[in-house]
Amino acid sequence: MKKSLQIILIGAGNLGFHLGKKLFEEGLVVQQVFSRKKINAKRLAKLIDAEPISNLDKISKEGDLYILAIPDNIIETVANSLSKKIPASKLIVHTSGATPSSVLQPFFKNYGIFYPLQTFSISKEVDYQNIPICVDSNLKKNRILLEKIGKQISKKVYLINDKERAILHVAAVFVNNFSNNLFTIGETITKKENLPFEILKPLIQETVNKILDHSPNDMQTGPAKRGDKNTIDRHLKYLDKNFPEFSEIYKLMTHSINSKIVTK
Amino acid sequence: MKKSLQIILIGAGNLGFHLGKKLFEEGLVVQQVFSRKKINAKRLAKLIDAEPISNLDKISKEGDLYILAIPDNIIETVANSLSKKIPASKLIVHTSGATPSSVLQPFFKNYGIFYPLQTFSISKEVDYQNIPICVDSNLKKNRILLEKIGKQISKKVYLINDKERAILHVAAVFVNNFSNNLFTIGETITKKENLPFEILKPLIQETVNKILDHSPNDMQTGPAKRGDKNTIDRHLKYLDKNFPEFSEIYKLMTHSINSKIVTK
Repeated sequence: MKKSLQIILIGAGNLGFHLGKKLFEEGLVVQQVFSRKKINAKRLAKLIDAEPISNLDKISKEGDLYILAIPDNIIETVANSLSKKIPASKLIVHTSGATPSSVLQPFFKNYGIFYPLQTFSISKEVDYQNIPICVDSNLKKNRILLEKIGKQISKKVYLINDKERAILHVAAVFVNNFSNNLFTIGETITKKENLPFEILKPLIQETVNKILDHSPNDMQTGPAKRGDKNTIDRHLKYLDKNFPEFSEIYKLMTHSINSKIVTK
Repeated sequence: MKKSLQIILIGAGNLGFHLGKKLFEEGLVVQQVFSRKKINAKRLAKLIDAEPISNLDKISKEGDLYILAIPDNIIETVANSLSKKIPASKLIVHTSGATPSSVLQPFFKNYGIFYPLQTFSISKEVDYQNIPICVDSNLKKNRILLEKIGKQISKKVYLINDKERAILHVAAVFVNNFSNNLFTIGETITKKENLPFEILKPLIQETVNKILDHSPNDMQTGPAKRGDKNTIDRHLKYLDKNFPEFSEIYKLMTHSINSKIVTK
């Protein structure tokens, strides 16, 4: 019988947790889960029938694929440490949108990317099969393997190189991080004014529903779009007085929507 | 037999169109639909068994409720014109988030608000029963009537006064207009770089799914939140070179998420 592919998952945080679970659910074998925090390694390992480890010395040399699901700023360091524990011929990938695959190159001959383009929180279940998985590698045989694994857990697998991934990551920051910050601003304003934030949620949902089959550019509405200077001035007067920390964002976004509107 | 309430709908644009359809669907009687554009009046009137009119002289004096679903900047003028055609005792409401009800007061004794807090496009069907309807009026009996009509078309009816509605409208601009603009930025970047905007849509959907049962403040992720200055600098370098028009928004939003990060 052909031995299954052995995956070693390094990292059990927001991304590693959901990725590990999904790999397991789709019948892939995660041999070990590493986390510096023993409790995190155990929490995930228990769910996916893996060995939890929190000491890199214990890492298996028998893995076929090493997945780094760790913060961007430690990928290089961890890859360096790992290269002293496992053969340099092993396939290692990271899961970061912002980091070039080349940070792995000094340490390993086979390196690549397995980047689920999604935002993860441990406490929030995700619909993995609709998450775009961006894969890449220095070698075709690795790309084929990563695409195959990607297709086992998602309907949407893209071959995306380092440059493209970096661009997608910038765009993702705008559409995810920054729009979430706008939702936080909406929550801050309503809470402080004793209004229910709930009342804005259907609007937020519809904002997104609209762009699923229309260009957001065609869906733009509101006072900036209409060039409704009276409303804009009234809003700014209110913000300057009550939420001055949001005034600049209001002005800049208004101008971005309608460059004819310049506020002082 | 008690005569049904006669509604006169003034305006057949994005909001008027969907409101008129929903009122009709729930068994309410829309007697007339007015639009300056005959074709718009006809398009809606045909769907909801109403009389289309495009001349205010033809407006019925027999209506029980006159709903102004027209742009903010013409509400006062149209109310003034209307007051010369129908008795000043008639109940008139507008549907604007940004406009105080007091603009109707000079012309009518019974005035109020019927504001569906949602974004509408003619071409996009909406799930009306989940749209919050904000109602208010100068008299209790009118408020009761408007609440009753609201409840016929939506599960969520709120009594919201002018001041509260103005605040909600500011918050709505942030969560709807401005986040849509961020989606447009994401689309602009991906399109220009020959990447599929589609790839970002699951991320956008999840951004919203997360906040339906969590505070957006708790759901914030990304380089700004992490204080990941390297990634932020790389993003800004890319934007300065390729999309300088988006650099300021990136900086301001980053600082808004994490005030410790100050970019030059």
